[in-house]
Amino acid sequence: MENITSKNNDKIKLAIQLKDSASARKKASSFFVEGARLCYDAAVSNVDILQFFFTPKAKEKFYDFYCEISSKANSIFEISEEISKKMSDTQSPQGMFCVCKTVDKIAEADKINSRGKYILLENIQDPSNLGAISRTAEALGVDGMIVSGGCDIYNPKALRASMGAFFRLNVINCDDLQKFISQAKALKMTVAASTPSTDAVVITDVDFSGGVISIVGNEGNGVSRETMENASIKITIPMGGRAESLNAGTAAAIIIWEMMRHGS
Amino acid sequence: MENITSKNNDKIKLAIQLKDSASARKKASSFFVEGARLCYDAAVSNVDILQFFFTPKAKEKFYDFYCEISSKANSIFEISEEISKKMSDTQSPQGMFCVCKTVDKIAEADKINSRGKYILLENIQDPSNLGAISRTAEALGVDGMIVSGGCDIYNPKALRASMGAFFRLNVINCDDLQKFISQAKALKMTVAASTPSTDAVVITDVDFSGGVISIVGNEGNGVSRETMENASIKITIPMGGRAESLNAGTAAAIIIWEMMRHGS
Repeated sequence: MENITSKNNDKIKLAIQLKDSASARKKASSFFVEGARLCYDAAVSNVDILQFFFTPKAKEKFYDFYCEISSKANSIFEISEEISKKMSDTQSPQGMFCVCKTVDKIAEADKINSRGKYILLENIQDPSNLGAISRTAEALGVDGMIVSGGCDIYNPKALRASMGAFFRLNVINCDDLQKFISQAKALKMTVAASTPSTDAVVITDVDFSGGVISIVGNEGNGVSRETMENASIKITIPMGGRAESLNAGTAAAIIIWEMMRHGS
Repeated sequence: MENITSKNNDKIKLAIQLKDSASARKKASSFFVEGARLCYDAAVSNVDILQFFFTPKAKEKFYDFYCEISSKANSIFEISEEISKKMSDTQSPQGMFCVCKTVDKIAEADKINSRGKYILLENIQDPSNLGAISRTAEALGVDGMIVSGGCDIYNPKALRASMGAFFRLNVINCDDLQKFISQAKALKMTVAASTPSTDAVVITDVDFSGGVISIVGNEGNGVSRETMENASIKITIPMGGRAESLNAGTAAAIIIWEMMRHGS
């Protein structure tokens, strides 16, 4: 264990960069986690913890978490309250932070289970939506969540909203969505793109048996036209009220629910 | 039309109080709305607009909204950019604000449609959850949303998250929940309380025909024990993953979805 007393310490500066910048995360292949429970979730989910930072107060208050996290971390640093405040996004920081290694799984359809059920997010922008959808996906037991564009899952707000679901869920980054869709279709998976359009198949009439990838699109623009055209089926949630009233998180919840309860 | 140039104007001070304080809203039986679109939604939803405040810039930018809102408002006030900043909760205010009359509907079960489908929220604390659930409730076409305790629907964050759904939805405040449940049961309505407990009836096996009131509970503690005991049935959403992973908004979405698609 090492003691860090200077706010200008390079490790502290890097940790803050990882918190604030998606490109810093990409460059360093690592990300920042804040909060006792979330650091603990990372530790028990076999996330690779490169550095663990804690204040003496946090060690005392969250001693069980402290033990678990430090047993998993490569390096451990005691920090002052002042440094903790500098690292934190919150008004009253808990005083526990980790820097972890990102796992970059590139989506290749032949590596996914061709009989599985997946939710695919195309260009979701809002970190809270991304995090909330990951919680739903985990709770309802999908085989994986595929993320194509938009907010990255290592965004601190997304991590917070996910309540650790990202660590436990099979999350796959997809760089070339159209190629991926073609591969999935070649494996006889159903690629179902959701749309508010009433031309689409009503979700309660969709055959979710076998391998399925359900796509939820961007908050403002929905699923892109190219993806919509490449999908094997267009699906829609029938609404009594205004179509624009169902947000991405709610639409994803209903789609995942229907996919998981009908599929086998 | 009147011109307000002083930040210490009584009307401005009252509007800000209505924004910030639930008790001020209760006392004055009025609430505060910010944003061009939301003020417009209030105007076209026959909400009683007592005062409409706008900056010259906002009038120019949102001229159609301006016309609709001013045609409905009792009094109209032009304000400076400086006052607009003081009234606003956002970094770049749009410069349109309303003070509207609250509609306090006390829930008496004999005034609701005993064959209708209702979502009842017991002690929901998070304004964003409350707003998001109202959007879902509107989109999926419930007959009404009953609010018992917790965050009030006139909270500015809840209003924003609702995207005006509160104005269009039949929202009923319920002061005496146990009395209300007894009345509803006497009218032969099904009162279904949701719980993560696996003892409850799986939601896909629930008979949602006839009049139904589905209850979603507080984010941390769920439906209260008293309400759980008074309900006619306990229902649950089966989960593959961790039970704690389904948040109140997602649980409400799936419950409303199942209630509306099965019920008739």
